[in-house]
Amino acid sequence: MGAAVIGFGYWGPNLARNISGSNVLRLDYICDLSAKNRSMAASQYQGTKVTGSLEEILSDSSVGAIFIATPPSTHFSLALKSLDAGKHVLVEKPLANSSKECRILIEKAENRGCTLMVDHTFAYTGAVRKMKALAASSLGVLQYYDSVRINLGLFQRDVNVLWDLAVHDLAILDNITSLKPVAISATGHAHVEGYPANSAYLTLFYEESFIAHIHCSWMAPVKIRRTLLGGSEKMVVYDDLEPTEKIKVYDKGISLNPSSKEKYDLRVDYRTADILSPKVDGREALASMIEEFANAIRTNSKPLTDAMSGMRIVAILESADISLSKRGAPIDIPII
Amino acid sequence: MGAAVIGFGYWGPNLARNISGSNVLRLDYICDLSAKNRSMAASQYQGTKVTGSLEEILSDSSVGAIFIATPPSTHFSLALKSLDAGKHVLVEKPLANSSKECRILIEKAENRGCTLMVDHTFAYTGAVRKMKALAASSLGVLQYYDSVRINLGLFQRDVNVLWDLAVHDLAILDNITSLKPVAISATGHAHVEGYPANSAYLTLFYEESFIAHIHCSWMAPVKIRRTLLGGSEKMVVYDDLEPTEKIKVYDKGISLNPSSKEKYDLRVDYRTADILSPKVDGREALASMIEEFANAIRTNSKPLTDAMSGMRIVAILESADISLSKRGAPIDIPII
Amino acid sequence: MGAAVIGFGYWGPNLARNISGSNVLRLDYICDLSAKNRSMAASQYQGTKVTGSLEEILSDSSVGAIFIATPPSTHFSLALKSLDAGKHVLVEKPLANSSKECRILIEKAENRGCTLMVDHTFAYTGAVRKMKALAASSLGVLQYYDSVRINLGLFQRDVNVLWDLAVHDLAILDNITSLKPVAISATGHAHVEGYPANSAYLTLFYEESFIAHIHCSWMAPVKIRRTLLGGSEKMVVYDDLEPTEKIKVYDKGISLNPSSKEKYDLRVDYRTADILSPKVDGREALASMIEEFANAIRTNSKPLTDAMSGMRIVAILESADISLSKRGAPIDIPII
Amino acid sequence: MGAAVIGFGYWGPNLARNISGSNVLRLDYICDLSAKNRSMAASQYQGTKVTGSLEEILSDSSVGAIFIATPPSTHFSLALKSLDAGKHVLVEKPLANSSKECRILIEKAENRGCTLMVDHTFAYTGAVRKMKALAASSLGVLQYYDSVRINLGLFQRDVNVLWDLAVHDLAILDNITSLKPVAISATGHAHVEGYPANSAYLTLFYEESFIAHIHCSWMAPVKIRRTLLGGSEKMVVYDDLEPTEKIKVYDKGISLNPSSKEKYDLRVDYRTADILSPKVDGREALASMIEEFANAIRTNSKPLTDAMSGMRIVAILESADISLSKRGAPIDIPII
Repeated sequence: MGAAVIGFGYWGPNLARNISGSNVLRLDYICDLSAKNRSMAASQYQGTKVTGSLEEILSDSSVGAIFIATPPSTHFSLALKSLDAGKHVLVEKPLANSSKECRILIEKAENRGCTLMVDHTFAYTGAVRKMKALAASSLGVLQYYDSVRINLGLFQRDVNVLWDLAVHDLAILDNITSLKPVAISATGHAHVEGYPANSAYLTLFYEESFIAHIHCSWMAPVKIRRTLLGGSEKMVVYDDLEPTEKIKVYDKGISLNPSSKEKYDLRVDYRTADILSPKVDGREALASMIEEFANAIRTNSKPLTDAMSGMRIVAILESADISLSKRGAPIDIPII
Repeated sequence: MGAAVIGFGYWGPNLARNISGSNVLRLDYICDLSAKNRSMAASQYQGTKVTGSLEEILSDSSVGAIFIATPPSTHFSLALKSLDAGKHVLVEKPLANSSKECRILIEKAENRGCTLMVDHTFAYTGAVRKMKALAASSLGVLQYYDSVRINLGLFQRDVNVLWDLAVHDLAILDNITSLKPVAISATGHAHVEGYPANSAYLTLFYEESFIAHIHCSWMAPVKIRRTLLGGSEKMVVYDDLEPTEKIKVYDKGISLNPSSKEKYDLRVDYRTADILSPKVDGREALASMIEEFANAIRTNSKPLTDAMSGMRIVAILESADISLSKRGAPIDIPII
Repeated sequence: MGAAVIGFGYWGPNLARNISGSNVLRLDYICDLSAKNRSMAASQYQGTKVTGSLEEILSDSSVGAIFIATPPSTHFSLALKSLDAGKHVLVEKPLANSSKECRILIEKAENRGCTLMVDHTFAYTGAVRKMKALAASSLGVLQYYDSVRINLGLFQRDVNVLWDLAVHDLAILDNITSLKPVAISATGHAHVEGYPANSAYLTLFYEESFIAHIHCSWMAPVKIRRTLLGGSEKMVVYDDLEPTEKIKVYDKGISLNPSSKEKYDLRVDYRTADILSPKVDGREALASMIEEFANAIRTNSKPLTDAMSGMRIVAILESADISLSKRGAPIDIPII
Repeated sequence: MGAAVIGFGYWGPNLARNISGSNVLRLDYICDLSAKNRSMAASQYQGTKVTGSLEEILSDSSVGAIFIATPPSTHFSLALKSLDAGKHVLVEKPLANSSKECRILIEKAENRGCTLMVDHTFAYTGAVRKMKALAASSLGVLQYYDSVRINLGLFQRDVNVLWDLAVHDLAILDNITSLKPVAISATGHAHVEGYPANSAYLTLFYEESFIAHIHCSWMAPVKIRRTLLGGSEKMVVYDDLEPTEKIKVYDKGISLNPSSKEKYDLRVDYRTADILSPKVDGREALASMIEEFANAIRTNSKPLTDAMSGMRIVAILESADISLSKRGAPIDIPII
């Protein structure tokens, strides 16, 4: 099936590389409004048509799949047009700028019988798949998720740090557990005149005894990507910057009535059991994501990161923005 | 001057060791209600009287300084009695269970002309003193403080994790900056029936463009003690578990209009300047703290961690508890 | 049984503390020639006689065990006197300055029916015991031992770095494997006029296909204590500075005919299997060592680190010194 | 000037990418005997002629520069042919299989007036250039170089681990200091029937008080690339796997007459001064290397890694192989 990549800026080239490397899709078109990006695309993909016109692509019946990697503000209109043209669509995260827009896209996809999917890349990484498997098998009752996703980043004007970084953790949470968040408290700060919040803290309250917290920032001197997932039986540490030990499983939960020996050990901070670092599949996540998309189209089935998951996450971000503007006042999250 | 240690459980022995090692105080008494603790004290400090009676100590005119290292719930009554007896008093953190109690102790100390001090040990560590010096000299306008203080800890019944762990960061903040917090949003969870919150997240909103966040937990599989202090000119990372590089100074703030080269570097996460890890004074903090106490008594001056700082921190913890019970609803912090 | 510690400088206090903490030995005497050290001992151990005279101790029939923690050059004469007096003797490493001296001590101990043991502390640590167990069970055929034991250390005049640091690895090797070294090549350098070698490299050639290498130095800016133990089935990394993950077991040996996938993984340095960090017994090694000594005396049995092991290690160090003076020329190691 | 890459296996593609990215050379040809590699090259470089015939390239007068990235055993003959044809030649390390071959190539290059250069890539990395600058400016008298270059690698049949890994450190040493090695002691082991040594230890003895040691292995469970460079004034740690702090400068050498405070600090392993991690140029080394080659051709000047340096390193490897076969017996290194 023929495919087209819309937007050849930062992320588009990664999509193009993986599409041309896949054996289920054919990279027919690359589309970008910038001449500079088009010439770069042309030099790298001789066999591929490079254009500035989406219409040209939508009118080509040999093209079945559209990959949208343009700025967030354009996701909605481009996806809507593509679905209207009867194309299957994959959209970069976030799916759209509001849950209202998401709903329109979802209905349109249903009406046209097209597959609509969002690129929550992390859901396809070996590390997150391993975490999900552990959560399902051996962690016991999930108790908390705590993630730090900070670095010295580019300050963006059009979107705050939640929509740029926290979205990844929301997608991971949506993927590894079926528990639903019911309320959110968000705090943060915009340190620079005329720029949106660059550092933020999110607490998600879930049904049952589960809680999640996400710290995201463009303003940290060090890069950290570290997630803790705590269960009643075992706990996981996921460090995405670790080259070889991304996932560590701690063979111990909390102990409420520790022996005096345990008490002493905890005081002097002894570890209390074995630690296992399971091998994690190193395959590139984007390749798996594209396979999932192609497979969902072929079998007309629901992909792992379907449009509904994209809408759930956008809805949470909307609630977060409200809480953020109210210094952490708790905001209910609509059930979707 | 003669000194007495009240409470010889977990922290008391550290006080006793440092008092007996100091050349300004004389360890006359150790007091504990538990016979087991008393016999341990007796075997270690032959020259020192060991008793179960506070009265015996308060009636001994050769004793000038009282160190209270008993459970928090007893701090108020024991400190009040000691001040009534005209003794100078150092109390373990927290100073008391409420700001109301703190105020009573402070007034009593003033009436009796006694020194009242709280043991915020971290204020006396080489690392925190270095951070304070950097904040005053080269960081520029302070923008944020972010601290993670988590480990697999003992679950306590009488006090939640805020009063056990966050209190340290509040003391560090009170010490390194004169900026005052105006409101707080706290979230967290008590995962175990009949136990208080074991994991909590605090956001402190300050006057001007400064924000602080503290993550404390007894439920993490790994021990982390890492603090970021961001300024407009430089940023500091303080890792208290680092044996030799506790403090790192990053010679770069954020860049709003990065060159395309910088943009690329930030994408691939290049560091953008030199990193300096200054040597930090390794002297034991408790020794300095005891010196400060003795010096404050001798010169009748205000110690670094005076009772007012203890009260400010208790007031913040009170506000935090309210916010915690309201899922992060922002609570004003009284000006003290 | 009564015990005496001879030498209260750097190591003696650790022995004294563990003896007084043990329930099988009674700390009757501490002996040191320095008045300063004696007064320090007196203040810490009120119940214990402190003296400058070894004779006084040897003539006290209630004393059964002598712990010698004096400078290496004095080990031989002090141990010999103590054995002559019919005392059981534990000597700090190295057992003596030459294998000839070791042999004399061993014969004397046999004649007097006394236990003679050397304090190879590492053999009693949880980490080394775990390595030994792994070597015996799951590593397969042992292939190599590689240890780095470096730091910015005190330059010593009386002994070179081999006798100060490499001795620990030789003791670990002697303990974890029954394979015998047959030849040695040692290189190194004395960078400072009038001081012995401060950095050295040892290669031990063993019977069968096993090889060991030790890098020890007083001249490194960083402290490293890292040992690799390679087997045909699994490999172990032992990092003694790791607070909680001292031992890691890599579930993979080498692959001679790797698949192209494996080849790629190796190129990009992917790890090839799970990693396990087993919990290691955190008990203080000296306590176990003292128990072993007391037990060997009581049951008149051979202790784990008996005098013969001490002699084997001294013999290796003698050969190493010769090779060191010949720029690595291989020297045969006598079979003992 | 036109350029050709001979050999499109593991390293050739990196050369091709950097040549096509340079603005001083034009990638005219890629040559490989394997049809599979040729088709891969063809798909990636449409504008470039792909051939299996070196002669075709050598007879094309528009080609001035030949890059040889074939197996070591072929370096000599291919380089000789290319020089005979009057081409400028860059050869992958090692320059050839013997110093005799190196000498023939050097003389041929002189006779033909061609530039002959060896690709010692590390000499062009920002980290090594920083180390060289530090060695020249602030380290004081160089005292030692110690490098660990180990990982779980592919076992090679045609060349032992010295020629595969140690060659990098020899090139770094040749580059950062003008001191000359006078003798070498090498030990190691071939653990697998029919394969050359897979683990080796090299000690290089230099004129004056400088010593170097290299540990290289294909058989370690962990990847380590860590080099210490010690001077009388300061010491450097270079960790090539560190993403952001490759170089650390320790502001302290050894102290011969430490104060008792220093002694204590060293005992408890305190660091003794500030640590600086200078920013290192992140530019790809191969790009600089190709620039250097083009510039040497244009200006007919001696490049940084000229053929003489390649010959010096091959001569050291020859001596190392002899010592390796004699269990570390010291072998003199010929002055070149």
